[in-house]
Amino acid sequence: MNESLEALLIEYKRYKGLHLNINMSRGQPCKEQLDLSMPLLDVLDSSSSLISEDGFDCRNYGVLTGLEECKKLFGDILKINPKNIIIRGNSSLSIMFDCISHAMTHGILGYTPWMKLEKPVKWLCPVPGYDRHFAITEYFGIEMINIPMKEDGPDMDLIEDLIQDDSVKGVWCVPQYSNPSGITYSDEVVRRFARLKPAAKDFRIYWDDAYAAHHLYEANRDSLSNILEECEKAGNPDLVYHFVSTSKITFPGSGVSLIASSEANIQEIMKRMKYQIISFDKINQLRHVRFFHDAEGVEAHMKKHAAILRPKFELAEQILQEELQGLAEWSKPKGGYFICLYVHGHAKEVIQRCRECGIILTDAGCAFPYHKDPDNSVIRIAPSCPSLEELEKAMKILCLSVKIETKQ
Amino acid sequence: MNESLEALLIEYKRYKGLHLNINMSRGQPCKEQLDLSMPLLDVLDSSSSLISEDGFDCRNYGVLTGLEECKKLFGDILKINPKNIIIRGNSSLSIMFDCISHAMTHGILGYTPWMKLEKPVKWLCPVPGYDRHFAITEYFGIEMINIPMKEDGPDMDLIEDLIQDDSVKGVWCVPQYSNPSGITYSDEVVRRFARLKPAAKDFRIYWDDAYAAHHLYEANRDSLSNILEECEKAGNPDLVYHFVSTSKITFPGSGVSLIASSEANIQEIMKRMKYQIISFDKINQLRHVRFFHDAEGVEAHMKKHAAILRPKFELAEQILQEELQGLAEWSKPKGGYFICLYVHGHAKEVIQRCRECGIILTDAGCAFPYHKDPDNSVIRIAPSCPSLEELEKAMKILCLSVKIETKQ
Repeated sequence: MNESLEALLIEYKRYKGLHLNINMSRGQPCKEQLDLSMPLLDVLDSSSSLISEDGFDCRNYGVLTGLEECKKLFGDILKINPKNIIIRGNSSLSIMFDCISHAMTHGILGYTPWMKLEKPVKWLCPVPGYDRHFAITEYFGIEMINIPMKEDGPDMDLIEDLIQDDSVKGVWCVPQYSNPSGITYSDEVVRRFARLKPAAKDFRIYWDDAYAAHHLYEANRDSLSNILEECEKAGNPDLVYHFVSTSKITFPGSGVSLIASSEANIQEIMKRMKYQIISFDKINQLRHVRFFHDAEGVEAHMKKHAAILRPKFELAEQILQEELQGLAEWSKPKGGYFICLYVHGHAKEVIQRCRECGIILTDAGCAFPYHKDPDNSVIRIAPSCPSLEELEKAMKILCLSVKIETKQ
Repeated sequence: MNESLEALLIEYKRYKGLHLNINMSRGQPCKEQLDLSMPLLDVLDSSSSLISEDGFDCRNYGVLTGLEECKKLFGDILKINPKNIIIRGNSSLSIMFDCISHAMTHGILGYTPWMKLEKPVKWLCPVPGYDRHFAITEYFGIEMINIPMKEDGPDMDLIEDLIQDDSVKGVWCVPQYSNPSGITYSDEVVRRFARLKPAAKDFRIYWDDAYAAHHLYEANRDSLSNILEECEKAGNPDLVYHFVSTSKITFPGSGVSLIASSEANIQEIMKRMKYQIISFDKINQLRHVRFFHDAEGVEAHMKKHAAILRPKFELAEQILQEELQGLAEWSKPKGGYFICLYVHGHAKEVIQRCRECGIILTDAGCAFPYHKDPDNSVIRIAPSCPSLEELEKAMKILCLSVKIETKQ
């Protein structure tokens, strides 16, 4: 453990000589995971009936808000009434983008469009968080405010305080196996979210439930309270937009996505959709329903993903444990796609050092609004894509880089 | 021909007794047309390679602007350089919506976002036109101005005059087999469009090439000049957004769509897409490429559509000829999805009378901004969906209704 800087640099040079090219920057499923969903392509062929359970020909226009049987499938998984669900295209990110775009030009449920407000809109951003969320709010010129993450979710005291400002119109959440911290919001945090009384009536919780089904272990797993139900109970039915997609269940980019919310929100979104599109890809919706059948089908499928991902997470954790004990902290997630490494004051330099050795990590600062990590601390590790052999090398180089940088 | 009103009403009553339910309201392919594309579902299965020609795994994230081979396929069909094409999701309508949404919040190529303008944005709407186009501009509070259609396209003198107003930011066009008039813009009209010198630098032509491949006849067909090429020649490369989809080539809602434009416009759209989505459904793009192979493949497929549609258009035309000669005018399109019937002053009443007899036509006024047909004249007939037998009845009832209403 107590190697000299010189010895570390010699080892680093040796790794550099390997001319590696290993990408751990994005939460992408690996080839073996993609292979798991290949039978999805056999579910429908030219001999199949493409008539939905309620009699619609899925090959033609129509059924704006998605197939009823697809709503039932996800309702079953998420414990949400199908009537509160709209199935859309292949991307939940684009639904989020669209929700904000709608608020900008038309306003939410009759409130002033945000483009027409005198003061700039503000947004709460639990950090570290998902770069693509922050990118959307930045794109729309929304002022982002960092909210520190605690062990059981965002700092709710701070959120409860900040929502007294009626310019604060939203909060980004990845409530389960959060990207990148791995944290799952506790029941109490979810309840406090549901009970928020924001000054802005058009404040919404943007609940990106990206990793709802992404457990690494069968028994040792986090569970998340039902936010829609909690909001309903709290007398705040319209407070949340709940987003889900199958991007990391079947094929990224070729899955289905949904938004779930209160009846009033759903009605409003549907009204907008009438102008936007005639209908989404119902054949792909049908393909997913016929592939999974029900929530148990999804659960069984996700176990296969876990069997591939688990050894990678465990290997990464083991190497961190062996190499960085006392030098850094890291998350030990029970699911999701990321391990979060905290190297106080050294993230940028460590990431650069890894890059020079052929190990690509997400850019420093990416997990923060405006790419600014105030402590230059967070490194997001995405262990899914590399093979175990590559991962071992990549993690060793990462740990070596941390050791070198913390010694200098 | 010279039946008494009484005799007509007796015949009408007889039809009413049949309790028909025939929908001719939307341009939907019929079941037999949908069957043509069923082999599309066999093209990819679990034994297929889903690696694109340039080595991307289509099952994973990435390739934001669409598969290169898909761009080539459409470039080949449309005679457009693939680098000027972005392949998106299943709906060209949603691309159009998004272009306008972008202009509202962010502005086009650095010009003031339309939401920030003091004067309301105005829009040119060739009429009769496509109701869903007008719905989008109405949704964004854009003031629509009717432009009469002539035999070879919109009244270009009027358009050239109106674009001197810098509040005029766009024009809707369905340049080939126009919805619903069936008109194809002449080469001269396309050239005049390309040479427009609008006062507003962020004026664009919204060129919805929905029926590019939808000819009814092999030889007797309209051809349309290449608007991108003409704009380039005229020194106006950024003037046009060109939209296409396969909705009526393969499956409505489960096809692929694209936007083609100048490099500057494409760059801007791509920049926005980086915030909107990670990638579109590349598996479906690949499916379409492997199904069609090339432009000839699409042409051969479209001949099969024509073989189904042609008898329907010819039957409708024949009945109009037999029944309404001298009483009304109608279009004789060589392609597309609609016949346009002009019943000066009687459209609303005729459509209502048809409805009471179980024949559903598009609502009166739908082909005009704000649903206002100034002459109460236009009836859009969509003959694709009914069977020949149903179509015959529907057309006879329609003609009967015209005769009754023009006598009253």
